[in-house]
Amino acid sequence: MSKIRVAILQTQVFEDKKANLQQAEKLLGQVAFQNIDLAILPEMFDCPYETGRFPVYAEEEGGESFRACSAMAEKYGIYLAAGSMPECDQQGRVYNTACVFDRQGRRIAKHRKLHLFDIDVEGGQSFRESDTLSAGDEITVFDTEYCRMGICICYDLRFPEIFRLMALDGAEVVLVPAAFNMTTGPAHWELLFRQRAVDNQAWFIGVASARDGQAGYVSWGHSIVTDPWGTVVMQMDEKPGVRVVEIDLDMGERVRRELPFLSQRRTDLYRVERTKQGDR
Amino acid sequence: MSKIRVAILQTQVFEDKKANLQQAEKLLGQVAFQNIDLAILPEMFDCPYETGRFPVYAEEEGGESFRACSAMAEKYGIYLAAGSMPECDQQGRVYNTACVFDRQGRRIAKHRKLHLFDIDVEGGQSFRESDTLSAGDEITVFDTEYCRMGICICYDLRFPEIFRLMALDGAEVVLVPAAFNMTTGPAHWELLFRQRAVDNQAWFIGVASARDGQAGYVSWGHSIVTDPWGTVVMQMDEKPGVRVVEIDLDMGERVRRELPFLSQRRTDLYRVERTKQGDR
Repeated sequence: MSKIRVAILQTQVFEDKKANLQQAEKLLGQVAFQNIDLAILPEMFDCPYETGRFPVYAEEEGGESFRACSAMAEKYGIYLAAGSMPECDQQGRVYNTACVFDRQGRRIAKHRKLHLFDIDVEGGQSFRESDTLSAGDEITVFDTEYCRMGICICYDLRFPEIFRLMALDGAEVVLVPAAFNMTTGPAHWELLFRQRAVDNQAWFIGVASARDGQAGYVSWGHSIVTDPWGTVVMQMDEKPGVRVVEIDLDMGERVRRELPFLSQRRTDLYRVERTKQGDR
Repeated sequence: MSKIRVAILQTQVFEDKKANLQQAEKLLGQVAFQNIDLAILPEMFDCPYETGRFPVYAEEEGGESFRACSAMAEKYGIYLAAGSMPECDQQGRVYNTACVFDRQGRRIAKHRKLHLFDIDVEGGQSFRESDTLSAGDEITVFDTEYCRMGICICYDLRFPEIFRLMALDGAEVVLVPAAFNMTTGPAHWELLFRQRAVDNQAWFIGVASARDGQAGYVSWGHSIVTDPWGTVVMQMDEKPGVRVVEIDLDMGERVRRELPFLSQRRTDLYRVERTKQGDR
């Protein structure tokens, strides 16, 4: 079982949460006959990407979007990385949260975005997630019947340390629900996926929302799959749609043998470490 | 003093050590009138890149190549990163060593390659530096009148940890004498320079030897300069030559302000650390 068939659902985000859930179901239905093992949705796929909306759309775990995603995973008998959605806890804090469901619809992983997206590029994109969101505090990996995988959200991709830790922890595939913008997208999107894949000799899958030129935050789109050699295996344009890509875990094993970076690190000189022991 | 004029000397490596030194001097002479502040030579610029040659060409510090480079720096009143050369110590160990000289010809930094180049790509490049070389044990930064800089050699570029440590240590420019090959060059050379620059918001300068199709190890060439936004400012082709590039340190400051990655790292969750306290 070294091959995984992955459906990349590049959905467009509407105002209506139900419409977003229906669109996910519809796109998934279009490729369900293709022996999909894993489907992935974009960052904030059920909520417009605006700081003012996150608290309004937020649900506690078990809410409407959560249940709909669990049901989709079970209905199609697939792993579903339910992009991310605004999640609130009992104290009223709101997170940008990615849940992963298994083939029975059980939630097997939950990642709360670690690095809030606060940037201010002169003449380009500005955004302050921290106006309404709280940050998570766990680097997230999880096990599937194929291999260990990591998951993070969008701006988390900017911080190489967490991918090194995932790779050392055995992750062979990293899922990145995301929504880069018209400044950082053309500049860094493809580069970041290629670079993380090469450095960590793992498959990286970025799933972005489709572009809506009228939205408050305009997504770059361009959902992407990079292999452990850094090659772009698939990249979409900006429009809504779904693609199916087969990834081969044996390739990662071969690359790690040919270019044995991970074992050649000089851990006598430097080390990347978790500074907090999480509950994994 | 935020602008530095850099001469990139993409020399071809000959059998004759003296011819290599003369070529470096000749290329430098061609651009000396352009107010150069810093010149950089390729990896193993004075010795064919073959494991069997390294011990034969190796000098102790103060040998012929060392003296010639010190003299060039002083003659032109520039900083000279003397690519790398095979260096032996009194115990007979041989290193791949990069020396940096200041405007008075004083040696102000010495980096011994940390990660020996041992790879074996199926149908591609194989090489085993460790057959004849020993590895260094210091991550190297040094101070100039402009800013702090880092220096590493070729395969060291594969290991992101050391650049994070250089950046945290204040390096704004990183010099990389190198010689990628016909397998890893087209696949990863430009990508690696762009990615390290973006992650660490610093200028990266890669100086490669020119391609010699008859050599035992065929260099990719393509000396390159990437700015802190990840843009390729200059890239050569495979032929011998010299280019002058002006780099602006103010740009790094602006990028670090707009995309404040370095300060947004979650050091409560992860950290890159030196595991050995060197003698810097």
